[in-house]
Order: sequence, then C-alpha cells, then structure tokens
Amino acid sequence: MARAPTRIAILAGGSGTRFWPAGRASKPKQLLALDGDDKRPLLRATVDRVKPLSRRPPLIVAPAKFKRALTKLLPELPADAFLWEPEPRNTCAAVALAAHAAQAAGHDGPLVVVPADHHVAPLKDYRAALRSMAERARVFDGIVTLGLEPDHAATGYGYLERGVKLADAAAGPIHSVRRFIEKPSRRRAQGMLKRGGFLWNGGTFAFRPSVFLSQLDQHQADIGWPLARAFQRYGGKAFTAALRRAYDGMPSISIDYAVMEKSRSVEVLASDITWDDLGSWDAVARRRTADEDGNRLRGDVSVIASKDCLVDAESGHVALLGVKGLVVVRRGDTVLVARRGHGEEVRKVVQRLKDEGREDLLR
Amino acid sequence: MARAPTRIAILAGGSGTRFWPAGRASKPKQLLALDGDDKRPLLRATVDRVKPLSRRPPLIVAPAKFKRALTKLLPELPADAFLWEPEPRNTCAAVALAAHAAQAAGHDGPLVVVPADHHVAPLKDYRAALRSMAERARVFDGIVTLGLEPDHAATGYGYLERGVKLADAAAGPIHSVRRFIEKPSRRRAQGMLKRGGFLWNGGTFAFRPSVFLSQLDQHQADIGWPLARAFQRYGGKAFTAALRRAYDGMPSISIDYAVMEKSRSVEVLASDITWDDLGSWDAVARRRTADEDGNRLRGDVSVIASKDCLVDAESGHVALLGVKGLVVVRRGDTVLVARRGHGEEVRKVVQRLKDEGREDLLR
Repeated sequence: MARAPTRIAILAGGSGTRFWPAGRASKPKQLLALDGDDKRPLLRATVDRVKPLSRRPPLIVAPAKFKRALTKLLPELPADAFLWEPEPRNTCAAVALAAHAAQAAGHDGPLVVVPADHHVAPLKDYRAALRSMAERARVFDGIVTLGLEPDHAATGYGYLERGVKLADAAAGPIHSVRRFIEKPSRRRAQGMLKRGGFLWNGGTFAFRPSVFLSQLDQHQADIGWPLARAFQRYGGKAFTAALRRAYDGMPSISIDYAVMEKSRSVEVLASDITWDDLGSWDAVARRRTADEDGNRLRGDVSVIASKDCLVDAESGHVALLGVKGLVVVRRGDTVLVARRGHGEEVRKVVQRLKDEGREDLLR
Repeated sequence: MARAPTRIAILAGGSGTRFWPAGRASKPKQLLALDGDDKRPLLRATVDRVKPLSRRPPLIVAPAKFKRALTKLLPELPADAFLWEPEPRNTCAAVALAAHAAQAAGHDGPLVVVPADHHVAPLKDYRAALRSMAERARVFDGIVTLGLEPDHAATGYGYLERGVKLADAAAGPIHSVRRFIEKPSRRRAQGMLKRGGFLWNGGTFAFRPSVFLSQLDQHQADIGWPLARAFQRYGGKAFTAALRRAYDGMPSISIDYAVMEKSRSVEVLASDITWDDLGSWDAVARRRTADEDGNRLRGDVSVIASKDCLVDAESGHVALLGVKGLVVVRRGDTVLVARRGHGEEVRKVVQRLKDEGREDLLR
C-alpha cells in the first residue's frame, strides 16, 4: 500500500485589529504585507512557502466574507481548497474544519496545520521542521506541535514546557509536553529563559485527521459533532447551509484551550528556526530592513533628523521632522501616529473608535 | 483746516514655508487660521481688527498672484484698496508702495502699517497703541515703531534698545531708539531681559507718507525713485506695467535694514500688550487652547495616552497613541509629523522637497 501523502491546511482567519489602520474589517492581517521587506500579503507568502511540501493544494480555512479577496489572491487554487467559515469561531473550529474536510476527501495521511500570518526563516529549515512533524504524525496517535527555542524573554507569546525526549527527528528533537503556559509576565519569561526547557508555542500542528477528530470528540464534542453532521452534506449544495447551522451553536475557543492543554497525546518538535508571530507593528518594524538612521520606510516619505521610526504609507506623503521611535501608518484617509512599544494598544484605538460609532474608520 | 485722518496699511506678503504642509505656495501664512482658536485666516482677522481705526478702507499690500483669493477673502474692500506686488521684494518695497499709494491718493495724515499675520491681545489696548502711534506721527517728522515689553527671553524676535523717554502717549511711553538688534542667542536674550530697556520689534510703523518717502530717498533711493516714477501712472491702465518695471530692478530688503537702522528719526512706543509673530507651529500651539492633557486638536482626531500634541488636520482622521510633544499637520494628501520645538526646521523639510523636485507637495 502506498503511503498516504501529506496535506497542508492554512488557518487564514483572524482580524487586523492590531494593524489598524492598515488592518480593518475589510483587510485582515493575512491580507497585509507585514513580513519584512516582502511585498506579498502574508497569506500569499504562506501558500508559496508550503507549496513544496505537498502535491495536493493546501486547504485554506478562511472567513466566508473574504471569498472574493482570497480567490483573487490565490487564483491557482481550486474551489474545493477553500473552507469558508460562516462566522469566526477561533482556532479549534478552524482546525476541526480542516481535519473534517481532509477526512471527507478520503485523506488520512498527515495533515499539517499552519497559521497564515507568521514570519519564519530560513525557509529550508522551516520546511524541514514541517516535514519532520508530518513524519512523526504518521506513526504517532496524537498531535505534534511546533516549539521554537526562545532567543529572548518574549512576553507576547505562549510557551510550553517540554518533557522527556522521545525521538530525534531530522529537523530537531521530539519531546513530550509537560504543560502549556499563557503569555507570561516579563519576570516569568526571564525565569523560563534562564531555566531552559521552555519553548515558544508556534501554533502549528501535525496529526492524522482521524486521530485529531477522536481527540476532539473526547475534549470538545460540541465542535466535533456538529461539524461531523455538516460534513454528511460535504460536496453537495446543502453543505454551506449545514455548515452555517453547525457554526451557529459552536463555542468560540482556541485549539490550545480546547484540545492541546487537555490531551495526553501531544508531542513537540523543538526547532531553532527564527520565528515571529508578527503580533503588532513593533514586531513588523523589527523584521523590516532599517536604513542607517534605524528608519524603516515604506511609501512616499521625507525624513529630517529622525530615527528609529517605522512608516508605512500606502498613499500620500509623510514627512518626519526631529522625531524618534514612532510608528506612522497611513491608509486611505487615516493616519496613526504611535510610539513604538505601544503596538499592543492599537486595539485600544480601535475599541475607542467602535465605542464612538466610527464604523467609517474601521471598515 | 480739518485734521487729516489716519489710514491703515496691511502688509500681506510672505510665504507659508514654516507652516508646511498647511502653508504652501498657493496658501501663504496670511491665508491660514493660525491665531489661537480663531477660525479666520490671519489677514481676515487683521482687517477686522483695524477697522475701527479709520473710516477709509485699509490698503492691502499683497502678491499679485493671490488677487483672486484675497478679493474673495475681503469682498467688502474696493479695488483700489489692494496694492498688488508683481514680485516679492521684502518689507521695504511693500511699505514704500503703501506710502506712495496713500500720497498719490492725496493723503498725508498718519499711515499706520501693520503686518497681516501676528497675534495681539487685548484688542482694545492694541488699538489704543496704534492710535497713540498715529497721533505721534502726526507731529513727529520721522517713523514711530511699535516696541513690545518682553515677558520672556525670546530668541525668535528682533529687539530694539530704547533711549530717552520723549513723551507719554495714552497707550504708553514714547522713547528714542538707541539701536536695533537681530534675533539674539539664548544667552544674549536672557541678558537683555535681565538688564531691561529692550523691547521686541513689532514690525509695525506709523508715519506721514511724505516723511517716510523722504527718509527712503535718503537711505534707499533705488526703491523710492523707481516707485515714484511708476506712481506717475497711478490710477491709469499703464500702472500695472509701470509697477512691474519698477519692481524688476528693485532690491529685496527689509525695512529694518533699509531704513530703520539707518534713520536718526525713529521713535518707539513701548507697549505691554501680548504680542506674538506666530513664527512657527510651536508659536501657534502656544496660542491654542489646550485640553486637560495639553493637547490642541483641530480636525477629526482620536487620542489615546498622548500629551502636549498639536494636531491640525483639515481632512481625514488622525489617531495618536502613546505620543508626547508632537506637531501633526495634515493638508490634502500630506502629513507632517514633527517634534515640538522644531518649528523653525519645517523650512528644512520644504527645502529638501524643493531640492528633490517635489513641486507637487509644495504647490
């Protein structure tokens, strides 16, 4: 019997809240070009990146409202590569949707689930890591997750503590997982870095669909079962409506909470690739090439006596004079002027605008 | 014989270089609303301010290229109130033009010449000062200038040192002038403030046209004579062309250099009104009312955790997040983000754009 091939699923949900005004309701993070000097939208780059890993097109799990934008962005993919979520329901539902779709298509080889909006480098090592995860998932009746060796005491990432070493894969050692740790305080992050044995949680998984769906039944049946019922209609006209009904009553919960933290069958591949979840303008700034004054400029920008600024202007002209450490983002008629290091708080601006009924600035 | 009435002339030349991007080639400073919370363009406010001082309309000396904008701004003024300069030639030519026009109209009462773009308060005291200057000019065969009692060691203004007291006018004492001092260093400004006897040079003059023109003949005949010849055509069709010929060969020089510093017939009225030449965005910021966080906001602005910022946005939305002490000015497609205290350097931005051939951003 031939080995079942590997498939890739890409999670392309999420909003662009932290990237306002570039990110908006109509322009979520995965449609923005935020990875270093790469001008491609993140999702486009991700699809290109995983292409060598599978002969089958990747499954794209994405909000139905972006159907037009995404099919335009990824014209080479067949219609059945897209899994349109009627409503956002966080990552557990999205991963489950991919697992069901793979299974419904008769696939029970390894499914590797990757986020659409992260930075990884070098490419070769990243692909090797995904390959090692897939190979492990082929023989392991559980979920293999990607852990990144931390190189600083990041407070913006989740962590996991590795347990005993179980195997040496081509791309790194595979360990059991002792526990998951949510975004830590600065102090705790420094402690973990010093002590060692902790990895960043890369939000990337490999499993056989049947294995994952059985774990889901065990830990979060209110997602597994409604989807199973909807997939009885898969491939038919009634599927869209069936999926909407399934989503209607489903909880919105992350895969970490729903499955990973509860399951006893989780392993981690420890990788030393460079990884960044590009969680804010601050992260984006770090990845772009700086000029000699530490400025990262995109668009029509004049700079006088200014340092360490990120400017991202899609239109118009931005002039900086005597300023340091600012993030200036311009989209359409809107300009954000923020201090670097306040990237997380861009959400507050968006919340304020929502509270003030300024939908015109958020669409 | 009835007393010759007072006339007012307003100098409305100058560029908006320091107020880019609000100030541009097509929008000089006197057409901008820069005086505190007043929404009127500076020239409009100045015309309104001097109205009670004279029954005759004020003479407006302004660049010919702004004919359309200015006649629209000041619809109540008759055509002969405007003196259109074919080219900018600094203040000496502008004052001389006003003096010639007044004389040609048969006027030899006091002419009070005021800039179009300063802040003065309170209004009542300002008008009283101009009245006292005019009354002094009625009997004094020289030039009366306005001196302001300094309340801080300003480095952005010219100064003059007063000499002996000659009279007590209604609005303040009148002194002889010992010398004029250009914009000083911080140290020198502090020395003058401490020592006393120094006044800010308010760029405001009163004289009888015949007296001024005789001084001009003495000190700067290459401005006085060509204008005298042009004014032989005054009131006729050929005047515009004659004025252009006169301006062609005329030096571009300030009235301070050309006449005031050389003349032995200069007196100063020492006034304690509040005065500001609104020389930069920093000055503009000081005059606008601040909210409780020290922000001065004009336009559609969101502010989160930000202090002491000036925002002036004619269109679009500006969001501030975690920033302090910035000047953010938006006009059309252009945004300036500058640190407060760098107002003088806005010129550098404009110069850079000129050097780069970016006329599109300067028109």
